[in-house]
Amino acid sequence: MRSIRAEDLKDLATGAAVLGTGGGGDPYIGSLMAREAIQKRGPVTLIDVDELPDEALVVPAAMMGAPTVMVEKLPQGDELTVAFKKLETFLGRKIDAVLCAEAGGLNSTTPVIVAAETGLPLVDGDGMGRAFPELQMASFTLHGVHATPMVMTDDKGNSVVLNTVDNRWTERLARAATIEMGGSALIALYAMDGATAKRAVIRGTVAQAIGIGRALREAHSLNQDGVAAVRDHLQAFHLFNGKIVDVSRRTVGGFARGKAVLEGLDDFAGQHLTIEFQNEFLVARTPNEVLASTPDLITVLDMDEGSPITTESLRFGFRVAVLGIPCDPQWRTAAGLELVGPRYFGYDISFVPVETLSATARS
Amino acid sequence: MRSIRAEDLKDLATGAAVLGTGGGGDPYIGSLMAREAIQKRGPVTLIDVDELPDEALVVPAAMMGAPTVMVEKLPQGDELTVAFKKLETFLGRKIDAVLCAEAGGLNSTTPVIVAAETGLPLVDGDGMGRAFPELQMASFTLHGVHATPMVMTDDKGNSVVLNTVDNRWTERLARAATIEMGGSALIALYAMDGATAKRAVIRGTVAQAIGIGRALREAHSLNQDGVAAVRDHLQAFHLFNGKIVDVSRRTVGGFARGKAVLEGLDDFAGQHLTIEFQNEFLVARTPNEVLASTPDLITVLDMDEGSPITTESLRFGFRVAVLGIPCDPQWRTAAGLELVGPRYFGYDISFVPVETLSATARS
Repeated sequence: MRSIRAEDLKDLATGAAVLGTGGGGDPYIGSLMAREAIQKRGPVTLIDVDELPDEALVVPAAMMGAPTVMVEKLPQGDELTVAFKKLETFLGRKIDAVLCAEAGGLNSTTPVIVAAETGLPLVDGDGMGRAFPELQMASFTLHGVHATPMVMTDDKGNSVVLNTVDNRWTERLARAATIEMGGSALIALYAMDGATAKRAVIRGTVAQAIGIGRALREAHSLNQDGVAAVRDHLQAFHLFNGKIVDVSRRTVGGFARGKAVLEGLDDFAGQHLTIEFQNEFLVARTPNEVLASTPDLITVLDMDEGSPITTESLRFGFRVAVLGIPCDPQWRTAAGLELVGPRYFGYDISFVPVETLSATARS
Repeated sequence: MRSIRAEDLKDLATGAAVLGTGGGGDPYIGSLMAREAIQKRGPVTLIDVDELPDEALVVPAAMMGAPTVMVEKLPQGDELTVAFKKLETFLGRKIDAVLCAEAGGLNSTTPVIVAAETGLPLVDGDGMGRAFPELQMASFTLHGVHATPMVMTDDKGNSVVLNTVDNRWTERLARAATIEMGGSALIALYAMDGATAKRAVIRGTVAQAIGIGRALREAHSLNQDGVAAVRDHLQAFHLFNGKIVDVSRRTVGGFARGKAVLEGLDDFAGQHLTIEFQNEFLVARTPNEVLASTPDLITVLDMDEGSPITTESLRFGFRVAVLGIPCDPQWRTAAGLELVGPRYFGYDISFVPVETLSATARS
């Protein structure tokens, strides 16, 4: 049993941005809110999913909405727990632990706030091992967990309880409500028992995010290479170093879609890489071959600092390193790829693991 | 205590189309469904609101959505009761009577189906005395009745429970959910006790609709003037006879907006009338003066038959009579006009009662 203290939150935010693969909302402001909650209420207990009794009730808490709106419309700490408490009332029993829905991005910090405010333990793990743009894209879906009953609340005092036939319908109805609620909402969903959580949760991802942040911070303090620190900590594949020479983006159906073109530097001089994104970085390819694709993680770091860069902050002239990180094995199953593979996002390519692609590229 | 029998439903549909003032959805198909429900379950008991015990629980049932979609996506009879039954579960007590939310249009028949299926009595009255396009536009709102908790269901098995800070927010969130649900949803809302219903309900409008339909049917059977029959039954003001010479319409935010221009016939020869509509007919005016405006009812009838004409079926060349009917006094209060007066719909005119306007026009 460990705890999350106020001084861990900066590391958590950094690591969550790495796992956010360019999307998921900026965790920095969320980490400030979590700091306030922890300073007021004390550290959050982080438990392993195996510590949960089988009959325990565990519920993820999150924010839903456009990342840019979410960080501009941040709720007060106690406001965040309203959806969580309403779901407890709706279910007619006490919730025993908080779970992280999405370890990448802003929602890495949301459940920390709820755990601090409620005094409940936080399970070390999440439903993505990264960030994804739609709520059915969770390992919980692969294990038959219903996202509903789901409670949504807004800053005005409105609330919505959804009961749907499947998690894609939950996404549709919740997305429409989120837009009406001003672009962001607080949500509690995917209630499950401990036995289910032990099967469905992607384990250890909260501690992993803190570990990534710590590795980068320690590298900085020792004047070491930040990119190498993140890469080595994650055993990531170093796909590319380059300068951004073109960025195009458009907003389609609430998603920030676009691509960035990189001109190689160092060992990659003379080569070009294109990274396509839809909120998150989804496909990295040269003119000849794919180097990595969703659900594997594609992370873009500032070459000098090693700091993660979001899709919104991509700018012409930035010198960046591109890492590829194997996703959780659950995503590489047929069901996983149907939910979050390249074809779901409209790319006409078959998923090949980044480690296979890297071996091919090297050979 | 009276009852609604299968043979009353055609009259109800005709009268509801008159009270629908061009909108509210075509009640004809709903009346066929109500006929089937009554043939299966027996007549529906129609009670006066004063027959309700003060502590009785009374709940309106309705369909929400674009009228054209609603009539194309008509639910089975028992499907309609799902939202109603779910609200009963949510409230944790039995509902004692069904109420009509909207006497004009399709929703005149919806509660008849629910009453037949559940065996509950139907209160003779509604929340509009006509049709209006948004759900907060109900006399219930004027009496402080919350539309929520409100249950929405769709044909796929999804359901949504809304709890909002006011009835305009209910409209916004419910409208967004309705669109995602495929353009129509079944709803139960505005739960209230008998004491409140006695103050808030616009009385007698279900029997009134049946009476209008009967008057027109009897006139037809006697080869009498249908327009005169409807006009005299309602003590309506005969605003205009004319031929439609222009119709323009566009769909804005889910509403069918537009206007029709009429060239006068008979006593009105040489004059022109413009009728502006947003789902319902809202303003009737000559180049010089307003003849009637919302919340008073503007109804367009086929000149030969006296049959009501909806905004969607307005066509060049139709010969029509235009009637103005005083609305319920509740709508003529300051609070009523704020909710459904001309300015709410964007017309820069002050409401003047149709009887005053007609007296002025004649003088």
